[in-house]
Amino acid sequence: MSVITLLTDFGHRDAFVGTMKGVILGISPEAQIVDLSHEIAPQRIEEGAFVLRTAYAYFPEGTVHVAVVDPGVGGTRRALIVETPGYRFVGPDNGIFAHVYAKETDLRVVSVTEPRFMLPEISNTFHGRDVFAPVAAHLALGASVSDFGTEVTDYETGTITEPVAHEGGITGRVLHIDRYGNIITDIGDSLFLERTREKQFRIRLADLVLDRVSASYDEADTGAYLAILDSAGLLEIAINGGSAAEILGVATGERVDVEVK
Amino acid sequence: MSVITLLTDFGHRDAFVGTMKGVILGISPEAQIVDLSHEIAPQRIEEGAFVLRTAYAYFPEGTVHVAVVDPGVGGTRRALIVETPGYRFVGPDNGIFAHVYAKETDLRVVSVTEPRFMLPEISNTFHGRDVFAPVAAHLALGASVSDFGTEVTDYETGTITEPVAHEGGITGRVLHIDRYGNIITDIGDSLFLERTREKQFRIRLADLVLDRVSASYDEADTGAYLAILDSAGLLEIAINGGSAAEILGVATGERVDVEVK
Amino acid sequence: MSVITLLTDFGHRDAFVGTMKGVILGISPEAQIVDLSHEIAPQRIEEGAFVLRTAYAYFPEGTVHVAVVDPGVGGTRRALIVETPGYRFVGPDNGIFAHVYAKETDLRVVSVTEPRFMLPEISNTFHGRDVFAPVAAHLALGASVSDFGTEVTDYETGTITEPVAHEGGITGRVLHIDRYGNIITDIGDSLFLERTREKQFRIRLADLVLDRVSASYDEADTGAYLAILDSAGLLEIAINGGSAAEILGVATGERVDVEVK
Repeated sequence: MSVITLLTDFGHRDAFVGTMKGVILGISPEAQIVDLSHEIAPQRIEEGAFVLRTAYAYFPEGTVHVAVVDPGVGGTRRALIVETPGYRFVGPDNGIFAHVYAKETDLRVVSVTEPRFMLPEISNTFHGRDVFAPVAAHLALGASVSDFGTEVTDYETGTITEPVAHEGGITGRVLHIDRYGNIITDIGDSLFLERTREKQFRIRLADLVLDRVSASYDEADTGAYLAILDSAGLLEIAINGGSAAEILGVATGERVDVEVK
Repeated sequence: MSVITLLTDFGHRDAFVGTMKGVILGISPEAQIVDLSHEIAPQRIEEGAFVLRTAYAYFPEGTVHVAVVDPGVGGTRRALIVETPGYRFVGPDNGIFAHVYAKETDLRVVSVTEPRFMLPEISNTFHGRDVFAPVAAHLALGASVSDFGTEVTDYETGTITEPVAHEGGITGRVLHIDRYGNIITDIGDSLFLERTREKQFRIRLADLVLDRVSASYDEADTGAYLAILDSAGLLEIAINGGSAAEILGVATGERVDVEVK
Repeated sequence: MSVITLLTDFGHRDAFVGTMKGVILGISPEAQIVDLSHEIAPQRIEEGAFVLRTAYAYFPEGTVHVAVVDPGVGGTRRALIVETPGYRFVGPDNGIFAHVYAKETDLRVVSVTEPRFMLPEISNTFHGRDVFAPVAAHLALGASVSDFGTEVTDYETGTITEPVAHEGGITGRVLHIDRYGNIITDIGDSLFLERTREKQFRIRLADLVLDRVSASYDEADTGAYLAILDSAGLLEIAINGGSAAEILGVATGERVDVEVK
């Protein structure tokens, strides 16, 4: 039995996701299908790429991860399988796998062209159903990646902001706002700890200045701001019991500074 | 192993859907349960009927499709099983299966009255849990449709708007607005292609006029309107990268014209 | 094969829930995982406790119910397993199991301390992934509750409002507003029926007065208020075809009176 995960911007009102599952179960009846998220903001590839990054490595080896945020559906963008030692990823060639490309050192990318792994009729608007779901189901059944098409190297690597370490500290960006309004930055915990070790520091975001990192949300008073190293290994700004993003008025892309003395 | 799908207006805040799954797994532990949608607008039977139409035929033969949009729960409306060569459908007799009745030529409808296929206590407000879930689970286990009650022919067929083909073209209606704000009409692709073949045409909706059909969303410029034949086989009006329904201010039921010269 | 349910306030935008499922399937590949709700309002423990109450007893014996509404994550609150004759419950020691403690007479509570049932690295912000998911998976695999830690009796029992029966009737509270805007009170059906049997009564909530209980929503005219004994065994105030909570302007905690003559 193998696991297939689905990440899309399809939402929950329509039956787009359920339809993909119907197609998968028709081909691979034993597949365990798990939803990662279907509430990626419409056509926000970077958001989908980030959410996939936080989750994929927690799945058993052999899992097939399908990610469909696909504004170019029906156009010229290719369909890809990305193979790493632990996983196969299926989705459009538009940067949705940006963090996989950045984190994984051993990977192979194949452009999917073999029609026998797709539905007989392919619409112009729903390749999640007609291409990506059947491809994932055939992978789960045991088809080899090389059966689907030829290897490519000119895939779209996508945009990942990387924090910059400099004399005065680190300059990063807000990468994601989560369900609670917690502000997740692109500053990784090892970089942060290395640059601030045995030093005084200040974290600056909009009007906010913080000079320490908490070990838990409730180390701060209710309603107070805090910085924390979060479950994705990233520096996060939060409010204990509230939405930091809403109260600070901060959105994705905003600059964050760690100043070190 | 058999598949059971669930489509409801129960939303995701309460545990209504999860409770139905608990009942199903208590009776049929091997069932694969798939969500079609639980965000049908409260008590909007037509919306549920349309979403079911887009999805059901993509499931493996033998799938049991449960649909519960049920404003008349606890009253006099009957509980039905609709049997077609490929599927069984379970839900209230209120038109939720309108498109199944319209598309399927070989069908049998049974009024469910046999208490041994229901929970021992039946509430007045939650037949999803007390009637429809256990009925679906017993069907998945192998019970025959005729065990559940007697055949009926006076079921509620529901409302489906059908486009009208006339001298000057086709007059249809907006059937659905999807997650992206794409406007799905009731004009089917074969009717549309047949009436516009080798002719000039204009698609009119509110203030919008379009004179061609695109092969993909990104054939239009970002932010531009387009018409496309969509994944449900229907004429759709969209904006590449935006919400056509929001910008046009269009809702379900609005008139759409295809004018042919 | 065993069933694991998940109830959280994690929402659907992030992959928090999917990640928990990945961890579970890595340990217990045969587990059937069912979502109860992930739209509990952020950090509203009482709401989570109520939603869990409505659902848990409808699952097959042996089900493991995981509930994570956890504002104190990473702090000093303990992780618990609550064992009853039918189920095991896994979650933080913060009152999320209030209704389980109130309804179940035979229960044992264990504080989870054994690291071999957790992920090797435990973050400060996501014990759903690092503690509760692996603990539930090991329970589903067959581990005994006593393997996880020692029994405790000083667990946080949480807050449950209980209706007060008095000379003039019953005084209760609004416990929950559901998806439809139905107003669920804490007045149980047996208490209500016992106190009103063969008597005239008035139900008062805000400006509303009702003097009878309906057997179904559609006994009332469309748009009219009604009282009904609902699927959770509680007195509910609703509008046929509308949102009673919105129109009355009522929220959780508001007083409800049943006056008996």
